[in-house]
Amino acid sequence: MTYETIRYQVENGIATVTLNRPEVFNAMNSVMMNELIALFDETDRDDAVRVVVVTGEGKGFCGGADLSKGADIFDKDKNGSAQKESPFYADGSFDYSKESARDGGGKLALRIFASLKPVIGAINGAGVGIGASMLLPMDIRIASEKARLGFVYARRGIVFECCSSWFLPRIVGITKALEWSYTGRVMPADELKAGGLVSEVVAHDQLLTRAYEIAREIADNTAPVSVALMRQMAWRSLGMSHPMEAHRIESRGICTRGRSPDAKEGVKSFMEKRLPEFECTVSKDMPDYFPWWDEPTYS
Amino acid sequence: MTYETIRYQVENGIATVTLNRPEVFNAMNSVMMNELIALFDETDRDDAVRVVVVTGEGKGFCGGADLSKGADIFDKDKNGSAQKESPFYADGSFDYSKESARDGGGKLALRIFASLKPVIGAINGAGVGIGASMLLPMDIRIASEKARLGFVYARRGIVFECCSSWFLPRIVGITKALEWSYTGRVMPADELKAGGLVSEVVAHDQLLTRAYEIAREIADNTAPVSVALMRQMAWRSLGMSHPMEAHRIESRGICTRGRSPDAKEGVKSFMEKRLPEFECTVSKDMPDYFPWWDEPTYS
Amino acid sequence: MTYETIRYQVENGIATVTLNRPEVFNAMNSVMMNELIALFDETDRDDAVRVVVVTGEGKGFCGGADLSKGADIFDKDKNGSAQKESPFYADGSFDYSKESARDGGGKLALRIFASLKPVIGAINGAGVGIGASMLLPMDIRIASEKARLGFVYARRGIVFECCSSWFLPRIVGITKALEWSYTGRVMPADELKAGGLVSEVVAHDQLLTRAYEIAREIADNTAPVSVALMRQMAWRSLGMSHPMEAHRIESRGICTRGRSPDAKEGVKSFMEKRLPEFECTVSKDMPDYFPWWDEPTYS
Repeated sequence: MTYETIRYQVENGIATVTLNRPEVFNAMNSVMMNELIALFDETDRDDAVRVVVVTGEGKGFCGGADLSKGADIFDKDKNGSAQKESPFYADGSFDYSKESARDGGGKLALRIFASLKPVIGAINGAGVGIGASMLLPMDIRIASEKARLGFVYARRGIVFECCSSWFLPRIVGITKALEWSYTGRVMPADELKAGGLVSEVVAHDQLLTRAYEIAREIADNTAPVSVALMRQMAWRSLGMSHPMEAHRIESRGICTRGRSPDAKEGVKSFMEKRLPEFECTVSKDMPDYFPWWDEPTYS
Repeated sequence: MTYETIRYQVENGIATVTLNRPEVFNAMNSVMMNELIALFDETDRDDAVRVVVVTGEGKGFCGGADLSKGADIFDKDKNGSAQKESPFYADGSFDYSKESARDGGGKLALRIFASLKPVIGAINGAGVGIGASMLLPMDIRIASEKARLGFVYARRGIVFECCSSWFLPRIVGITKALEWSYTGRVMPADELKAGGLVSEVVAHDQLLTRAYEIAREIADNTAPVSVALMRQMAWRSLGMSHPMEAHRIESRGICTRGRSPDAKEGVKSFMEKRLPEFECTVSKDMPDYFPWWDEPTYS
Repeated sequence: MTYETIRYQVENGIATVTLNRPEVFNAMNSVMMNELIALFDETDRDDAVRVVVVTGEGKGFCGGADLSKGADIFDKDKNGSAQKESPFYADGSFDYSKESARDGGGKLALRIFASLKPVIGAINGAGVGIGASMLLPMDIRIASEKARLGFVYARRGIVFECCSSWFLPRIVGITKALEWSYTGRVMPADELKAGGLVSEVVAHDQLLTRAYEIAREIADNTAPVSVALMRQMAWRSLGMSHPMEAHRIESRGICTRGRSPDAKEGVKSFMEKRLPEFECTVSKDMPDYFPWWDEPTYS
């Protein structure tokens, strides 16, 4: 698969995704959105990919919607995003259940949420609007000292998008989520770290080096099927009201994974003080109970 | 509207609410409780109010229940709080579904939870019991270096009230929530900051100055309808088990707000590097899908 | 009751539970698991126990499963754990609803979750696998400077167990939970503190002294029935989608506890500036509405 707005490269277990419209600070458009969604299908399918690293080309990470397109950029009636089944409203009313009524950023967020591979955001510069909120369904975020992010919705007259009303309070806590989104201001890397949005701030030229170090630690030491299961177990546990719900899923996991060749190799390699060589693959060896949930549909 | 136990003042978009019974450290009584509940109806209605700041007169923020009233202060049979339909229990049993069985602090917490305007707690001194827990449904809390708070329920022989069993773990995490409420001790400002309960500790005489700075940043830069929607989107997302639920609400928001004059002004003012002048008002322009939830009733 | 794998001692309101298989770094086996489960029945029943402190004998806290038993340690078909109704699978398929399919660690976690007494983990050394995750349903964790913990599941080829997929994100946040469990690495005490997993790191020889100080503050100042109720109120509020749900339970608590002798003693002792002497006991005086929930069953 080739991409127009992103660069994609897989090397030694690590996929690097580079937003690649540096002339507009990697502003999001519908091509980039669709390419990113397709890309996570590719990384899920490809056993050669253990970890996905997302970064931006040039000075910015992602400048959000391209505001130079004018004041109608967020108007689905005029910005072309509802084109295919337009008009999806007639007299000013909406059929909110229609596909065309969906927030595009939310589709991307839900796709990243469902990823079978861990995703590391390596924030090289400014990210605002969707350029900030698309980072939230990723798992680990690290920042260049030049990074800055803004959840600027209220300054543009719109609201949370990209499922950020769900992700942001779960990542930085409800208080920071409210403070940052009420003011809509752009925060420097240190404040992002203090708030828990990024785990580390590193020198600008060390950003990818450090992202790859984390990715390596995962790829070299852990079983791919274990990590794929655990990603969904952890994220989806956020919607569980009682630990018994987690216990049911974990028991299924311990039953199947405990007798897998991976569990035996995990014990053996530990006792022999060497790196493990796990044989189960995400494409072939996910257990029979996966997925254990019914994915909700939009409407 | 005039108030007996609080001072209320609106200036330049900011409402200041001052608990005003300094002779008893602003101890809560039923008049103050009812006045506070009524006040949030007023701030919601009044488009001149963008942000609400709550503080206390004198040395304390709010001393909780007035314990000098005696050992029956928490006994609904004897403290007069169930008067109107007393006795709500006959033989020692309760009809828990009755209005008179409700925790008064919880009614206040639920009213603040539903506020359409951001609420900033400016903690000028000690707050214990309901004087601490009424701060939790507010959005942002800052503290004077003289502030201290205690969730003292277990020391008084009672339990969480004011919906604090719901709010406290969501604001400071389950571990701090348990530690603070098991011991029931009173924490100084620095510990409140370390635990994430307050965002900042400032010099005592700078408390309101700083609260107004935060309020100004919101009032000057953001769209009132956006902020009103986002307040409910963020808080209510805490009850959502899957990001799809947030996506549905966000999509409604992006549809309606994206074509509003506010979204156009948001883009234009940004491109023209000037402060925005948003025209939509909370009293007239909340979108048709609001409220999108069924508010639960008590019984 | 006597125990084979743990030491149990109650003194002055504080129960000390010491994992006592130092020759294998207190590795978990089925005897220890069953003894720990039984022990929390004992601490719940015994009014002389106000707080439970859990620690380990010797250099380790708990080394997890005893990997020296060989590569089949996690295989329920071969490790004897499903013995009584083995085979619980025939042709490679599982009846996941069967008791024998349950993760043993999860049973322990659920028992600690239901405890009526606060539980303090005093981490004296290394804890990995279940030796780390059994600490999560405890309420407060403090660490010796020699402590280190690892959520190593993915390195062993298995997945979250002991309900850790539910507890870990709620204690350290989703980002740290993912980072720590994707890499499966063992973290030193300082990193555990920075991540919020432990509240304090203390000198090795001060570990129990400090744990007892915290326990004392609870035991000396608070009402046992209040604390028992509040423990369940706080933990179970995590599954509540709206503060109204908490308000209903809190109102029941304020009704019953507000008129109890404890509430009167709480006020009187405070006014008289002395330690309270609460008379209500967990064995006899839990209110009629407790438990207010239906405990979910496994299958």
